[in-house]
Amino acid sequence: MHNISKKPRKRIEGDSRERIIISAVELARTAGLEGLSFADLAKKVGMSKAGLFAHFKTKEELQLAAVDAARKRFLLEVIGPAQSESLGLARLYRTLLNWLAMLEKSCHQGGCFFYAASAEFDGRKGPVRQALVEAGGLWLEWIARQAEQAISREQLRTETNSEQLAYELHAFGQQANWVSQMLRDPRAYDRSRSAMRNLLLSHCTDTGRAVLDQMQATNEGHEP
Amino acid sequence: MHNISKKPRKRIEGDSRERIIISAVELARTAGLEGLSFADLAKKVGMSKAGLFAHFKTKEELQLAAVDAARKRFLLEVIGPAQSESLGLARLYRTLLNWLAMLEKSCHQGGCFFYAASAEFDGRKGPVRQALVEAGGLWLEWIARQAEQAISREQLRTETNSEQLAYELHAFGQQANWVSQMLRDPRAYDRSRSAMRNLLLSHCTDTGRAVLDQMQATNEGHEP
Repeated sequence: MHNISKKPRKRIEGDSRERIIISAVELARTAGLEGLSFADLAKKVGMSKAGLFAHFKTKEELQLAAVDAARKRFLLEVIGPAQSESLGLARLYRTLLNWLAMLEKSCHQGGCFFYAASAEFDGRKGPVRQALVEAGGLWLEWIARQAEQAISREQLRTETNSEQLAYELHAFGQQANWVSQMLRDPRAYDRSRSAMRNLLLSHCTDTGRAVLDQMQATNEGHEP
Repeated sequence: MHNISKKPRKRIEGDSRERIIISAVELARTAGLEGLSFADLAKKVGMSKAGLFAHFKTKEELQLAAVDAARKRFLLEVIGPAQSESLGLARLYRTLLNWLAMLEKSCHQGGCFFYAASAEFDGRKGPVRQALVEAGGLWLEWIARQAEQAISREQLRTETNSEQLAYELHAFGQQANWVSQMLRDPRAYDRSRSAMRNLLLSHCTDTGRAVLDQMQATNEGHEP
């Protein structure tokens, strides 16, 4: 009897842990990671506070799990779906478009988890800040690395500084979040799409320009 | 006797109110505006909590005073000193440089007050959010208006969209703050200066290019 009930029980426990983390990410978009209260979270998940504590002993443990979940979601929604594009400019551009699409989707749920959490933890110390720095730094490096690939494929000009380009492209993602969340201006996403495309075009060789034009044509075909 | 002591006393009271607000702005850079505690603030100012309450009845009142003080400081350090430049591109570029200089100066004090406060209040409602929206929106509009002036002076090309340009320039200021505060990368300010300059150059007419070159030459003369 004991053995039979063990497996499903474990799955249910796994499910509630999952549900807690997902709710924590959602709450943190508006309340922040420090603003996360076990009381609000328990209410959202439909669980007692004691039930929560069975999964997470401390707030920091919960915060770290939320950062980890948000990173996984970012990989799944932003980086993963771009892997079908060729290495270099096409994959870079698709990933940036996926990023903006993800930000746009979260527009009415409080916006970007990482943006909110970064502003909160940038002046602090400790493992949560460290996890956020790692996530942000890796994303910026990922953009720079794809730009390098595009340079070596002669899609971007050889004099392009990949780190500087990544810095500027990344700025437009952050800005989309600020303008849409703070000023409630929904044109932000289109503005950032346009800014990223024009910035990339200004670094493109003829080969690169053809890649972007081709992707634009395909997109317009798909989304009339 | 009563009358004689009245004036200095009032000045001292004015001074402590000022000191409280300045300390509140400083604390909010790292702790956030919601993270502002009367206890920490009292300690920083060297005053009792009761003393603080004599000046600010509620946290919101204090938060609003802090936003107001930060706006005044922004006007004084960023916009004011650029008024000696000619209307249009020169004034726009000088103001952007002042902005980055101000961000760089606050680098070790927790970074930009508005950045931290925006991320905190973007999902909330109420007068503090409203004050932040107004400050952020006016700054963005100010940039766009100067860009309009530069277009009408044929320093920027007629096809330049001033709102889009303001959006992109503003993004590089925000990015400088994120990269320096979160990733602790001090190259952020130079990266943003370079990004802003190149972006403006890509919109410049020959007249505009001469304005930027002239300013660059003067700057290099001043700051060897």
